[in-house]
Amino acid sequence: MIRTHDAGTLRASDAGTTVTLAGWVARRRDHGGVIFVDLRDASGVVQVVFREEDAHALRNEFCVKVVGEVNARPDGNENPELATGAIEVVANELTVLSEAAPLPLPVDDTITASDDLRLKYRYLDLRRSGPANALRLRSRANQIAREILHARDFNEIETPTLTRSTPEGARDFLVPVRLQPGTWYALPQSPQLFKQLLMVAGMERYYQIARCYRDEDFRADRQPEFTQLDIEMSFVTQDDIIALGEEIVSRLWSELADYQVQLPIPRITWTDAMNRYGSDKPDLRYGVELVELTDYLRGTAFRVFAGAIDAGGYVGAVVMPGGASQSRKELDGWQDWAKARGARGLAYVVLDAETGEPKGPVAKNLSAEHLSGLADVVGAKPGDAVFFAAATERREAQELLGAARIEIAKRANLIDESAWAFCWVVDAPMFEKTDEGGWTAVHHPFTSPNDEWIGNFETAPDQALAYAYDIVVNGNEIGGGSVRIHRGDVQSRVFDLLGITPEEAADKFGFLLEAFKYGPPPHAGIALGWDRTCMLLSGNESIREVIAFPKTRGGFDPLTTAPTPITSQQRLEAGIDAKPKAAAGTPGTDGQAVPVQHSN
Amino acid sequence: MIRTHDAGTLRASDAGTTVTLAGWVARRRDHGGVIFVDLRDASGVVQVVFREEDAHALRNEFCVKVVGEVNARPDGNENPELATGAIEVVANELTVLSEAAPLPLPVDDTITASDDLRLKYRYLDLRRSGPANALRLRSRANQIAREILHARDFNEIETPTLTRSTPEGARDFLVPVRLQPGTWYALPQSPQLFKQLLMVAGMERYYQIARCYRDEDFRADRQPEFTQLDIEMSFVTQDDIIALGEEIVSRLWSELADYQVQLPIPRITWTDAMNRYGSDKPDLRYGVELVELTDYLRGTAFRVFAGAIDAGGYVGAVVMPGGASQSRKELDGWQDWAKARGARGLAYVVLDAETGEPKGPVAKNLSAEHLSGLADVVGAKPGDAVFFAAATERREAQELLGAARIEIAKRANLIDESAWAFCWVVDAPMFEKTDEGGWTAVHHPFTSPNDEWIGNFETAPDQALAYAYDIVVNGNEIGGGSVRIHRGDVQSRVFDLLGITPEEAADKFGFLLEAFKYGPPPHAGIALGWDRTCMLLSGNESIREVIAFPKTRGGFDPLTTAPTPITSQQRLEAGIDAKPKAAAGTPGTDGQAVPVQHSN
Repeated sequence: MIRTHDAGTLRASDAGTTVTLAGWVARRRDHGGVIFVDLRDASGVVQVVFREEDAHALRNEFCVKVVGEVNARPDGNENPELATGAIEVVANELTVLSEAAPLPLPVDDTITASDDLRLKYRYLDLRRSGPANALRLRSRANQIAREILHARDFNEIETPTLTRSTPEGARDFLVPVRLQPGTWYALPQSPQLFKQLLMVAGMERYYQIARCYRDEDFRADRQPEFTQLDIEMSFVTQDDIIALGEEIVSRLWSELADYQVQLPIPRITWTDAMNRYGSDKPDLRYGVELVELTDYLRGTAFRVFAGAIDAGGYVGAVVMPGGASQSRKELDGWQDWAKARGARGLAYVVLDAETGEPKGPVAKNLSAEHLSGLADVVGAKPGDAVFFAAATERREAQELLGAARIEIAKRANLIDESAWAFCWVVDAPMFEKTDEGGWTAVHHPFTSPNDEWIGNFETAPDQALAYAYDIVVNGNEIGGGSVRIHRGDVQSRVFDLLGITPEEAADKFGFLLEAFKYGPPPHAGIALGWDRTCMLLSGNESIREVIAFPKTRGGFDPLTTAPTPITSQQRLEAGIDAKPKAAAGTPGTDGQAVPVQHSN
Repeated sequence: MIRTHDAGTLRASDAGTTVTLAGWVARRRDHGGVIFVDLRDASGVVQVVFREEDAHALRNEFCVKVVGEVNARPDGNENPELATGAIEVVANELTVLSEAAPLPLPVDDTITASDDLRLKYRYLDLRRSGPANALRLRSRANQIAREILHARDFNEIETPTLTRSTPEGARDFLVPVRLQPGTWYALPQSPQLFKQLLMVAGMERYYQIARCYRDEDFRADRQPEFTQLDIEMSFVTQDDIIALGEEIVSRLWSELADYQVQLPIPRITWTDAMNRYGSDKPDLRYGVELVELTDYLRGTAFRVFAGAIDAGGYVGAVVMPGGASQSRKELDGWQDWAKARGARGLAYVVLDAETGEPKGPVAKNLSAEHLSGLADVVGAKPGDAVFFAAATERREAQELLGAARIEIAKRANLIDESAWAFCWVVDAPMFEKTDEGGWTAVHHPFTSPNDEWIGNFETAPDQALAYAYDIVVNGNEIGGGSVRIHRGDVQSRVFDLLGITPEEAADKFGFLLEAFKYGPPPHAGIALGWDRTCMLLSGNESIREVIAFPKTRGGFDPLTTAPTPITSQQRLEAGIDAKPKAAAGTPGTDGQAVPVQHSN
């Protein structure tokens, strides 16, 4: 090692020791003949004192080696804010290991720079303690998860990332294969099929911190490559997976966020979550529950509500505490907010702070009876506002109210930012209707119906429930999984309901169905969204903060400028424009690769 | 859990316990009214006894749940070969969890099947103990490496796999980017550039068990995706990395191969390795060293040798103990062997077992003096054979002798298959001549010259040495690394020598050179080829054995039949045929993505 000590570890007890340090010039202060330098390395910062003539050339972010003596700081000069604040290092020797040009991005925790600038100079951004600590936390999170899983006899197994295009919803990234021109690999959206094959293989306990790929529009905070803690077990039930998930989450939060998760984590059914919070990932840091008013308002003359009720739909409300004090402009703002979400508007009533009298545009449309009982039925007090939503599709109205609930919590300042509220959302529906009137799998078509529905899900597909579970914290889904179907007869019935013919099934996931002919064990799993989990643990608001070299929107990397055009030579060599032989991609009967010739 | 106990853990002390087991029918034996079944799960095998009427439907690889009582086996029926051989489980209840169709691949450790069949039914192959244990060993290897690295404050950091095409020798896999049509990501051949950026970022200690990609012909035992244990450290010297590598290797071999590596592992210079073993990855399990005869044979009339000597080249020999007893056909076989390697042949002399008299075609061409001293100078005894090689290029002749040395060890049975012989090969050359008469980097252009050569490598590029090191075991290179250049002036001089103009350098790795302007620390690293390391540890002879779902030659996956043709719709959506906008791939001056429009 070039150094003898880590700068941040020096203490008063080291006084008198000669040390060799190596790190970066974090700050320099000149004091008549003496220069004070904050020397930073991965362990922290220490103050180094140079003679002016030795160090006059030093500038910020020079990389230096210093030999010096640890001295107690003069009385009154201690810095209690700094772990090394009791001492300073008086330099005898200085070696500049490398110089730094003027910095395009100041290495200073107090500076806020644009994301593009930070990512272009990510290597300077990561010299700041916040970004660096986010990566260190992530490394520690990996370690904790692995400790738990290895202690429980899990095997870490790598699954392929050059694989076959799958028929899932989101788009696959494709990779041309030079050695079989005209054919392509796909990058996997998850290791799902392979981890199920590993269960068929009898590995019983699999995990992987797996890179996954999704070629989607990068709305919000998506990355083209992302990471999940991917787990699968055989011979288990839903409760076993939930218990394992709880152990991982509680250890992570205990060690990395200094928070003791109360176990067991509460479970809420998917239907309750929608009814009470208008969301399948409810934020339980605050109340503000939805109230269904379909029955209460039955018979109303107000067309918006009556139309939904008559069509067998749903009317509901959510209360904004103190919302009556909002200005006209603020209340109008809610209309804009609703329209931005695709709704026609957000009906509301405000309750007079003094009298409790319902006012506002909707109040005019409701009968005196409906108005008089309203505060009681929705649980509102004088001074509150009541927002309504109505729709033929219950879920549509509930989701609008659920979004309003979140917005209410923000605007009314109801969120305890220091709180952590966990829940499992269980008993998710198996199926939902497609626009064409058929059925589609809410999770994936290998998700098992629960015991109640496994024999008869066809009789009421809209009500059939799955052994599928999501873990949610503060309104963020950080993981989810399911018990998988391991019985061929059940899988066939699910495909039938989904309108997937045996031929289609064989074409799309024939290799998995083939595997399931040979004694597949009951199995279940979970995947934790590792970027988001680490983001929350580190107190950040973007997953980019816990990714070493993230991409911006559109998948651009400001540092390397990837992606780039390719040359015609690369195009030719990669076989991008080659036509596949007719039989390519179909295995020979002996399982051998079909030879493919260059067609251009 | 569906089971209460793991089958393989039951012992005599469990007798009398009622257990619920779950696993697979490994073997069934009918004995008049009673059926004995070997029930296998991940923990091992136990014998279960069924009444004939309960279990007659069971066939191999059915997945079953069994409730039964653990009984001591009757006296004399114990099976000491089986960990559970003292007991058996008498079944009360049997549930068939899933049936198995007739097996295309018998689940039996004693069966050898073709690779294609094994990979097509990999989920059955992995039910065999050998293949399954290879994956379990690999998981444990990961865990051991991580324990060591976390204990030394390394951070596990994921680097991007959708990145920019690099100008290294081997071909990149390319990935079209739908959101920026006409532009492509490349899959990385290693995290090299990113790990160096992490050092510039001050992370100081990085590791990753990293997926890497190389679109090469799959000669020998290559896979298109492979894995390396990738490590980089700042403020260290070559000795620090070597010490870390030794700790990892010794822990791995101690825990997984029950072998105590003697530390420190011997170091041999690259030049010595070539001179003594004709290889930069010498197998030190046996002697059979090369002997240089250039000076000894100077003045010989034998044209083959004289030509090489006169041209400033090299003549050398290697001895095959007992090689004189080979038949004429065997000796002719060496000629074929040499020609298959591209050599013209392999000159030899055999020493008569009785008299020691040199015989054979070359003997006729050598003078009496050269013949009489030959045995002494090469260290041969009567009955040995001496093989010669001569070439203008020393390395060419040495490599032929090195290959002959390996072949000698095989044919003469000199290899102790139970031995482990480790070494570091250090002091590798910086540069080698290109066919065009220029210079190319032996490692990569960021490899640092050693202290002796850092100031003057231009004066004798063919002799300049690098701080580059490989770790070799039994003739397999399992890892390698180097100290990196961190000084801009040294990097520029290396580029100059390699004929890389500043413009080319900026185009190819401008972002790394830019980063190196801002106080890069001295740093060094290593990467262990994880597939090969785990292959050796598990006693296998192909890396496929330690990969869950490997590909065959040509990159074909017999299980999923990837790669496949894609549809024209996929092709269109992925933007494969889009023309990039002229500016695409060039970052704007503010580092933002240049907007790109669909051009088709």
